[in-house]
Amino acid sequence: MASPLSGIFTPNITPLDKQGRVDEDMLCSYVDWLIEKGVDGLYPNGSTGEFTRFTAEERRRIVKVLADHVKGRVPILAGAAEANVQETINACNAYGDMGVAAVAIVAPFYYKLSPEAVYQYFKEIADAARVPVTLYNIPLFASPIDVQTVTRLALDCPRIVGIKDSSGDLPNMMRMMAAIRPHRPDFCFLTGWEAALAPMLIAGCDGGTNATSGIVPELTGAIYRAVRDGQWQHAIQLQYQLIPLFDAMISCAEFPEGFRRGVKVRGWDMGRSRQPLSPSQMQAAEAAQQIIAKQLSGMPQVDLHGMALSRDKIATLSQDAALIDRIVQQIMSELKK
Amino acid sequence: MASPLSGIFTPNITPLDKQGRVDEDMLCSYVDWLIEKGVDGLYPNGSTGEFTRFTAEERRRIVKVLADHVKGRVPILAGAAEANVQETINACNAYGDMGVAAVAIVAPFYYKLSPEAVYQYFKEIADAARVPVTLYNIPLFASPIDVQTVTRLALDCPRIVGIKDSSGDLPNMMRMMAAIRPHRPDFCFLTGWEAALAPMLIAGCDGGTNATSGIVPELTGAIYRAVRDGQWQHAIQLQYQLIPLFDAMISCAEFPEGFRRGVKVRGWDMGRSRQPLSPSQMQAAEAAQQIIAKQLSGMPQVDLHGMALSRDKIATLSQDAALIDRIVQQIMSELKK
Amino acid sequence: MASPLSGIFTPNITPLDKQGRVDEDMLCSYVDWLIEKGVDGLYPNGSTGEFTRFTAEERRRIVKVLADHVKGRVPILAGAAEANVQETINACNAYGDMGVAAVAIVAPFYYKLSPEAVYQYFKEIADAARVPVTLYNIPLFASPIDVQTVTRLALDCPRIVGIKDSSGDLPNMMRMMAAIRPHRPDFCFLTGWEAALAPMLIAGCDGGTNATSGIVPELTGAIYRAVRDGQWQHAIQLQYQLIPLFDAMISCAEFPEGFRRGVKVRGWDMGRSRQPLSPSQMQAAEAAQQIIAKQLSGMPQVDLHGMALSRDKIATLSQDAALIDRIVQQIMSELKK
Amino acid sequence: MASPLSGIFTPNITPLDKQGRVDEDMLCSYVDWLIEKGVDGLYPNGSTGEFTRFTAEERRRIVKVLADHVKGRVPILAGAAEANVQETINACNAYGDMGVAAVAIVAPFYYKLSPEAVYQYFKEIADAARVPVTLYNIPLFASPIDVQTVTRLALDCPRIVGIKDSSGDLPNMMRMMAAIRPHRPDFCFLTGWEAALAPMLIAGCDGGTNATSGIVPELTGAIYRAVRDGQWQHAIQLQYQLIPLFDAMISCAEFPEGFRRGVKVRGWDMGRSRQPLSPSQMQAAEAAQQIIAKQLSGMPQVDLHGMALSRDKIATLSQDAALIDRIVQQIMSELKK
Repeated sequence: MASPLSGIFTPNITPLDKQGRVDEDMLCSYVDWLIEKGVDGLYPNGSTGEFTRFTAEERRRIVKVLADHVKGRVPILAGAAEANVQETINACNAYGDMGVAAVAIVAPFYYKLSPEAVYQYFKEIADAARVPVTLYNIPLFASPIDVQTVTRLALDCPRIVGIKDSSGDLPNMMRMMAAIRPHRPDFCFLTGWEAALAPMLIAGCDGGTNATSGIVPELTGAIYRAVRDGQWQHAIQLQYQLIPLFDAMISCAEFPEGFRRGVKVRGWDMGRSRQPLSPSQMQAAEAAQQIIAKQLSGMPQVDLHGMALSRDKIATLSQDAALIDRIVQQIMSELKK
Repeated sequence: MASPLSGIFTPNITPLDKQGRVDEDMLCSYVDWLIEKGVDGLYPNGSTGEFTRFTAEERRRIVKVLADHVKGRVPILAGAAEANVQETINACNAYGDMGVAAVAIVAPFYYKLSPEAVYQYFKEIADAARVPVTLYNIPLFASPIDVQTVTRLALDCPRIVGIKDSSGDLPNMMRMMAAIRPHRPDFCFLTGWEAALAPMLIAGCDGGTNATSGIVPELTGAIYRAVRDGQWQHAIQLQYQLIPLFDAMISCAEFPEGFRRGVKVRGWDMGRSRQPLSPSQMQAAEAAQQIIAKQLSGMPQVDLHGMALSRDKIATLSQDAALIDRIVQQIMSELKK
Repeated sequence: MASPLSGIFTPNITPLDKQGRVDEDMLCSYVDWLIEKGVDGLYPNGSTGEFTRFTAEERRRIVKVLADHVKGRVPILAGAAEANVQETINACNAYGDMGVAAVAIVAPFYYKLSPEAVYQYFKEIADAARVPVTLYNIPLFASPIDVQTVTRLALDCPRIVGIKDSSGDLPNMMRMMAAIRPHRPDFCFLTGWEAALAPMLIAGCDGGTNATSGIVPELTGAIYRAVRDGQWQHAIQLQYQLIPLFDAMISCAEFPEGFRRGVKVRGWDMGRSRQPLSPSQMQAAEAAQQIIAKQLSGMPQVDLHGMALSRDKIATLSQDAALIDRIVQQIMSELKK
Repeated sequence: MASPLSGIFTPNITPLDKQGRVDEDMLCSYVDWLIEKGVDGLYPNGSTGEFTRFTAEERRRIVKVLADHVKGRVPILAGAAEANVQETINACNAYGDMGVAAVAIVAPFYYKLSPEAVYQYFKEIADAARVPVTLYNIPLFASPIDVQTVTRLALDCPRIVGIKDSSGDLPNMMRMMAAIRPHRPDFCFLTGWEAALAPMLIAGCDGGTNATSGIVPELTGAIYRAVRDGQWQHAIQLQYQLIPLFDAMISCAEFPEGFRRGVKVRGWDMGRSRQPLSPSQMQAAEAAQQIIAKQLSGMPQVDLHGMALSRDKIATLSQDAALIDRIVQQIMSELKK
């Protein structure tokens, strides 16, 4: 049985215009490009999307724009963490109404919570949400969701359907799969740490939500398919190509600036992050961009040239999509009368 | 020269009603009590106030209610951190318009930023804010603001007037005072770690913003005055009383539940935190409350009995204050015509 | 080309008698058993062997006893870290004279050294040692040897022939292999973190030095051979069996008490560690031993019954080996005259 | 009642000659200088003395040389940690026979032990040692000895007479003093973190064991006396002088290289540490030495010029002391006959 959330989901960079506002047109064009390049799903309002740097209204709008534009071509996993349990439940249900496949909720951050409180937090959300929920474990940034807590939540909450784990801890991923799958064969395990993508998939993960897939969807997709098709040796070889690219992007200035630079190399100038960089950091980021460009040009799977052509095409498609959208809406509103 | 921000500021617990909404009446009564008990200032939207668990609108409202109610009886230091530089600047200026003495801005959290980016973040805020700004360093929860970065910001940004440091690192506090005071004698140093309150004040701090002062303002105030008046031996003796009380509250379930329990012992039932606790945590918190009650009953400075009486009186005063408020507003609106 | 150090090396528990002295007879019998069970090499004076809890003289004696007894049946990788550079060089050369295949040297511990100093430490040892040297990275206990430092040492020091890495960081292992192998195809990569043994081998490691191999050499050996023979799916399945056993042993009281308990389940009572345990820890260890016994009894690869029989046989073989040894020594001493 | 271990103890740098051997003559001359400068005690085989980089025999010899030379002029607190419980007990008793006032034993390192095991380790040593024992807590390098464990040991083991705490955690120091002193008024509390020396003494510590006292015994001694005599304001002012000097030395290359450089500025060239430094680290250390020299020249308490003169005098005294020593030994051996 194929898992409902499998394959590579892209946690997209959020494009900003000169005024620092979300560039919705570019967002739509970009996801069209990602879908064309074969990503299996989208993940707005993730850490790569800098969800904490947007207002609650902006986060809501980002998912709305994406859902309306994607129209089910690929599933959307929407980051739904808000200030507290009630606000998060409200966001979950709003995203459910927009048609997302599931939401992803990071454990509470700022305060470092104990496993008991982390459990209680997710339990209350899962009891009230009307949409499938995935846990998002990223101990580098937020309260950790330990193996035992994930297991308890999986067994107690049918509404929780998976975990997106960015710890990079492969043995812990195997411990979770061993503990949960006998009881919840539908539970999904996605890795957010692409430095170990191929080994994670080989160990049995269903997929990944990987920032790098927003820059080289061809490569992350190839790794996923290689593992799925039993070509594990090939997957490991591709993983050796992925690591230096990931390293160049993850080590550039502040996260996710390197990924912002990477996607620029692919032709998408998504503007400046809302976290300002110092002049020396800007210089370092420029240098990193050169390295990333060089790395990408050496990857046979990645069609740098084809991308630019594709963008024009996508822009047209994007307009078409918007046009279709308006027509559908008009018909629907007529029918309601 | 007395520092503009000196003495003990109380980072208040945010009272919630049964529905989980901010209990504005209790908030006003409570700050009246604090002022009566001698706190030197108020600090809404701090970590103790669980600022991250409220919406942007709620945070704005909390400061508005306080500012309108306090009417300058004591200075207000308002927590103003929002999702990004621009939102934070907007909050700073809104709070300035409400009449706060200064704002306190925690370093960016979730993402762990480098000193360079932390500098740039505060620099951009300080350049645009029209209100005095204090840095808020709490490395346990947010990106650290290291000694060198504080020093750079103090020398580069006249709008930045102080630091509230909750690291508890006494040598670092002395390093900062040594580096900054020769150039910025007005710069304020407040400690947020009351486990070392007396030693910090003895070493030269201007004051503290201490959660414990919301429960035993008599004791923290006595420590402050003892140091100010050269009674250092007495201050150390009081510090030995403060530590076990602080320990009982800080180690209780999730922060700031222990302080919520402590303030309840003083007669203020401020409701449940928005971070849910598990049943076993609730039991542990009940037990902790008994310990806190016992500790408080053994403190000669703390008038547990007098507090209850005082509360009735405060309620009256609070109504009076609201009445005066309405009268003043009416007059002002008449004058505007 | 087969790597000179490949396969599974067992970092043996050091057996102690009732008086707390090294039980040399049991040590010899035990390694006979390990060799019969198919381990590819031995690793005395590792962390599992509690090298820091023995005197310099005892460490020297342990390797001597093993080398004399094993007589080249399998290669020995001898832990050679001593108090300082010179003492370590002396130990390296002494072990070289005893016939070990290589030595393993942990980075300096107690003091936490910078990469620069770690490099200099190993450089000076490698320049003076007359035996192949492997680096031993275990950041949990000792100064870390980072990827760049390992790479520098591999390129600068022909005497350094490999690394034994117990960090469990799979991407870092891949980074090292990618950086070093093009220049040093002979350089060996051994993982010391069996929680990720199969994925590490799949990613390209030459082998492992794994405490668990001292308890279930059948299982770790089967994982190694499965990967080597391209049976990767099978290797992953076996890895899922290894993890809970490893977890039970690693989480028991103080390391390596759980492994001491595990080897007892296999019939080898190696006595008490020199680090005393409290009464409550002893009880916990007893309980853990029951769990380990139950886990082992459920492993089809592991012949618990056969082991006991085997031990008698080994005892005989061990006596034979000792007998042969004495005969050889006598002849040699006669010849010297 | 004056505590048996009070005042400033100097954890001496171990002088090495060109061949890397302990320079016993310089060691004796240096401690004469320290005693003349007013240190209250000596602390050989501490972290500053790099005890882990010497052999067990060398550590024994260092204490023997010091004890024979000092002849009770000041008390000696000898670092006695060895490979395991039994070796440590042997060292304790050997040092007791040499006439030291007490031994200091660091918690086990390399392996990170739980509080239970740390307790058991010290309990077994205390039960067998015939000399007063102090606990040495340095969580940066060794297993931490937490407040509760120190308290348990103080109450259970009369042989344990104090703690030397290098954590720098002032509230924890106060917690320990509050918990232990009512039951063990003789128990000593020494801080090993001179960045907080004055505040620690003001809070009630009996003294300190501070590497900086080996370079500026005048300054650390002045701080101790200022606090003892109630001149707390003066102590804080001196502390502001101590911190930048400490910072310059602690941040120089690898610990304790900065202190080795500092003592060189005072006229004692104690040779190179056994931990080799890289060329770039050597350059950095040279630069740091210049800074330290400049800092020292600006301290009115510190008589840099007088030191050099003093050294000649000390050399003579040292020869006298050695002469007296030999005479005493001769008489004693005659009497034994």
